[in-house]
Amino acid sequence: MQNFTLHTPTKVIFGKGQIAQLSNEIPKDAKILLIYGGGSIKHNGVLSQVHAALEGYSVELFGGIEPNPAYETLIKAVEYIHQNKIDYLLAVGGGSVIDGTKFIAAAAKYPGADPWEIMTSGGAHITSAIPFSCVLTLPATGSETNNISVISRRETDDKLHFASPFVYPQVAILDPAAAFSLPPRQVANGIVDAFVHTLEQYLTYPVNAKVQDRYAEGLLMTLLEEGPKALEEPENYDVRANIMWSATQALNGVLGAGVPQDWATHMLAHQLTAFHGLDHAQTLAIILPQLLQEKRDVKHDKLLQYAERVWNLTEGSEDERIDKAIYATRQFFESLGIKTHLSDYQLDGSSIPAMVNKLEQQGLVSLGEHQDITLDISKRIYEASI
Amino acid sequence: MQNFTLHTPTKVIFGKGQIAQLSNEIPKDAKILLIYGGGSIKHNGVLSQVHAALEGYSVELFGGIEPNPAYETLIKAVEYIHQNKIDYLLAVGGGSVIDGTKFIAAAAKYPGADPWEIMTSGGAHITSAIPFSCVLTLPATGSETNNISVISRRETDDKLHFASPFVYPQVAILDPAAAFSLPPRQVANGIVDAFVHTLEQYLTYPVNAKVQDRYAEGLLMTLLEEGPKALEEPENYDVRANIMWSATQALNGVLGAGVPQDWATHMLAHQLTAFHGLDHAQTLAIILPQLLQEKRDVKHDKLLQYAERVWNLTEGSEDERIDKAIYATRQFFESLGIKTHLSDYQLDGSSIPAMVNKLEQQGLVSLGEHQDITLDISKRIYEASI
Repeated sequence: MQNFTLHTPTKVIFGKGQIAQLSNEIPKDAKILLIYGGGSIKHNGVLSQVHAALEGYSVELFGGIEPNPAYETLIKAVEYIHQNKIDYLLAVGGGSVIDGTKFIAAAAKYPGADPWEIMTSGGAHITSAIPFSCVLTLPATGSETNNISVISRRETDDKLHFASPFVYPQVAILDPAAAFSLPPRQVANGIVDAFVHTLEQYLTYPVNAKVQDRYAEGLLMTLLEEGPKALEEPENYDVRANIMWSATQALNGVLGAGVPQDWATHMLAHQLTAFHGLDHAQTLAIILPQLLQEKRDVKHDKLLQYAERVWNLTEGSEDERIDKAIYATRQFFESLGIKTHLSDYQLDGSSIPAMVNKLEQQGLVSLGEHQDITLDISKRIYEASI
Repeated sequence: MQNFTLHTPTKVIFGKGQIAQLSNEIPKDAKILLIYGGGSIKHNGVLSQVHAALEGYSVELFGGIEPNPAYETLIKAVEYIHQNKIDYLLAVGGGSVIDGTKFIAAAAKYPGADPWEIMTSGGAHITSAIPFSCVLTLPATGSETNNISVISRRETDDKLHFASPFVYPQVAILDPAAAFSLPPRQVANGIVDAFVHTLEQYLTYPVNAKVQDRYAEGLLMTLLEEGPKALEEPENYDVRANIMWSATQALNGVLGAGVPQDWATHMLAHQLTAFHGLDHAQTLAIILPQLLQEKRDVKHDKLLQYAERVWNLTEGSEDERIDKAIYATRQFFESLGIKTHLSDYQLDGSSIPAMVNKLEQQGLVSLGEHQDITLDISKRIYEASI
């Protein structure tokens, strides 16, 4: 096992009706900006539950955070905060709203002249942030209990991430019932997102970290079992609860503590969203199977473990088992309605040279757990994904 | 899944050589009381590593915290703190030292007249505590990242626990190499302790909490695989690391979040330590198998799941599989050198009436996940354990 530091300070309040607990957690004199996305919280009852919980508080609203939250939008929230002396943020939504809120919280206190530096420096220069909590409505990214944020800049086709110890949510309220009304595409996206987050921290090379391996396999098996049920029985509370808790656990730091991590699938996938506006989960489902094929030699031991423990594949040669595990992974994504080839999205690969250029421009020239995915290999993975 | 609140704010710094990081975590102007146990840290290099890390700090020492830490000893540390204006505690040791430090931290700031009330009220009246961190030398109790403490009072044969949000360690340094020199009995105790902690949160009744079940099974399988190796190869770092991380995970709140919990084994076992001074793990190994036999009907479904997923028992009738799983559990404890009958410790059961009286006196009259373990049933479990 490798050395690690693990900090998970966010207080999780999980379950039915738990939004009501907000008033026990947020200081009574807080001047709150409630940050949300496209407005579904106005129709599914979540916003009214939040308002009921925060009766007597000063609460102002800032909506319109997009999927793949845009710097151009977030910077308007920062201006609003400065003008209105906001001192607490409450993100109500999915990973995009929470990621956006992390950027807003840090940018509002940023000591430098240009808040975009937060992204280009990966969060290194952040010295404080406005305190915030979140109410999760879409299990997927794990942003609700970690300190990571992914932000896009539309004018430059950039999609970058930052992390900082100052942007852990103080409290995360997770009510699985808040996800009942999600459209199937978002449900499926969330399952694939959590599944790939887990694989990024698991399918590398063995370092004899048995707890982390068993935890990862447990989350993968849970997502395999519960994923299809979430689409068939959208109001099955236990199914939604298992998926929501899996998605949170998949990226709270525990899986990745003490083990090598990959994340090349994410880096390549981010470009697809930046260039073509595909959903994050769609881009992961396109890249991952080809990346596993490309790196099957260095991932050999963990691919075999994945085949056996998650997919129960014990027959045939090692190569056959690895083939079957990669195929089963792709089929799982397809079974949830998420296509796994660029051509399924009417893309012919003509943007590949530009995406590879963008990787180079962002310094992403040696990716993966061995830092051996060069630009040439990234290009090959993109081309194999057509 | 049941509703839950989960808070794990302790920052974990895990691995070889990590004691050196203490100086990054403790304020430079802290007036530290370093609390330790029987003195093994003076011989195994841990104390000198701590002193090296804290060069330039004000550090005073308070040793002599016993296994099953005694109120009578801890209260002397509280007096010392008041007289010497100590404002930070550093526990260096195993679960007993950390549990004792939690009590000291709370008692030093306790608003009431009698600090023993902390134990009789279960921690309810604590309003603040001296901040503290810990360096773990014995993986076992999970005390290093939770807010629970078990304290004994010698003069009254009491062994009670308390919990409080004010007694989470700020930082927990976990260096598996610090455990290399432990005697085999303590290594085995730690493995059994972590194993039973996991079972207390797992072997109840199903609530469709798939992540928690898979995590528990993962820890149990890890302890089964690595436990014997830790005794055979005491300086195998990875083995020790897997056991240390399992023991921490077994009682940091994650396994028990959203699921029913038992803890009757612990309540019955505590009396055995209070009356006869047996090691905590020995008392768990004595009580658990008989408690599982006694409650095999209400634990039926989870016992079968345990038999299948942890012990790979899929043949035979349900009753046979449950019998085999309980037998295998007992044999695992015995294989580590921990005997599982009172008579193995030269106890003939003559103290059972007094122990049952003590349960009654402490209000422990309806134990277990269904609160259906009455005093009569507790008596039966004790008698079956002879």
